[in-house]
Amino acid sequence: MRITLRVIGIGPGNPRQLTLEAVDALADVDVFLVLDKGSAKRSLVAARHEILARHAPADHRVIEIADPPRDRHPDDYDAEVRRWHAARAAVIAEALAGELADGGVAAFLVWGDPALYDSTLRIVDDLCAQPHLDIDVQVIPGVTSASALTAAHRITANRVGEPIHITTGRRLAETPDGADTNQIVMLDGDLTFRDIADRDDHIWWGAYVGTDDEILISGRVADVADRIVAARAEARSRVGWIMDIYLLRKN
Amino acid sequence: MRITLRVIGIGPGNPRQLTLEAVDALADVDVFLVLDKGSAKRSLVAARHEILARHAPADHRVIEIADPPRDRHPDDYDAEVRRWHAARAAVIAEALAGELADGGVAAFLVWGDPALYDSTLRIVDDLCAQPHLDIDVQVIPGVTSASALTAAHRITANRVGEPIHITTGRRLAETPDGADTNQIVMLDGDLTFRDIADRDDHIWWGAYVGTDDEILISGRVADVADRIVAARAEARSRVGWIMDIYLLRKN
Repeated sequence: MRITLRVIGIGPGNPRQLTLEAVDALADVDVFLVLDKGSAKRSLVAARHEILARHAPADHRVIEIADPPRDRHPDDYDAEVRRWHAARAAVIAEALAGELADGGVAAFLVWGDPALYDSTLRIVDDLCAQPHLDIDVQVIPGVTSASALTAAHRITANRVGEPIHITTGRRLAETPDGADTNQIVMLDGDLTFRDIADRDDHIWWGAYVGTDDEILISGRVADVADRIVAARAEARSRVGWIMDIYLLRKN
Repeated sequence: MRITLRVIGIGPGNPRQLTLEAVDALADVDVFLVLDKGSAKRSLVAARHEILARHAPADHRVIEIADPPRDRHPDDYDAEVRRWHAARAAVIAEALAGELADGGVAAFLVWGDPALYDSTLRIVDDLCAQPHLDIDVQVIPGVTSASALTAAHRITANRVGEPIHITTGRRLAETPDGADTNQIVMLDGDLTFRDIADRDDHIWWGAYVGTDDEILISGRVADVADRIVAARAEARSRVGWIMDIYLLRKN
């Protein structure tokens, strides 16, 4: 059975930050695969719903893929992860075979861009290894949350010629000297910059960037760190979840 | 005089990689400012023309800004650069004052995203320092050539959790150990990876990514380096110019 599987970057949260290429790619999708189920954030689900209502075919279907059971404390961690990934791919392959005719089109929607801190393409690799499915994979790039952050602050990511390092809160402390001139930090629920940055470094922080809930704070780390901590806690409690990102620049 | 000045990221070359937000932002622009003049590459000019024809108002105007004269060998380099930047800002401010009514809208179009290796936002900063103009700056993020590259190769930019370093050919040799796990290299006419990478590193190279002229080569550095050099030289001579980018990953 031959199918087309699209991985479509839909930007960081604002439905207008979708590309025309993504709009084209949505237009003939038979089945959308959703992995996040109940854990998805309400306003993101609403934004995704708006995108599908506006750009997907009227008769599109959405299939929620339930994760297969997983042993969280196995003796052999890597083996269990591999087993679980294969089991998940088998579940998705079975869903595709049941829902699609030969030549049908399925798609995953990915917030931001599929290349940055997202596991969908790894799932697709597992899927391509499944028997009985001949999959034509197409990937549509999207606007990253990093671009949305810098645009919202109306800044460039670097000074002339400088490199940019993209990392996570968990890895921030490991960035080597000399690579830390401009850092874009994602997935940092602990706001690790407070332990890492110099007082005179500059930070540009944003939450829900590009959406109606957007919050932006920038300034010298020593001046704005407390304000960011407070704004993050307040927003998280008010909205029910938070997605934030920041650029940290050496002075 | 109060004006709106938009800096609009239009993606790396494919007019369908424009966002809906950029389409909205183009719809009421009175004047587009073009800085690259004669030096612009023909197929990029054609793509820009297509974008304006499709999305800008029918009565939009395009103004080419001629660079003011510049001393390339001054005694005081920094002072001359500052003087030249101020002179350029004055030329643009004069053009805006002559072309726009109060409340008018001007825009710069930027290939890719305005935050990455682009000087337009620095020009806008100079412009905001000019007298007699009260400028409301709006920045629209775009798809980066990095996202277009990884999408074309259908890969993620990193393995699980790893950081990503974005740099230029000129700076590639300076990337510290530990920051070089995944490097996205831009502006590298010399294909510097040949001097820097290990034989077993993996490279994903692309030229004219996302467009009809797209060329993709990937593999172990030792296996594909010569092929990339030859493809780049052939394409550059055939098309008349080249825009390429690559991802280099430690094995």
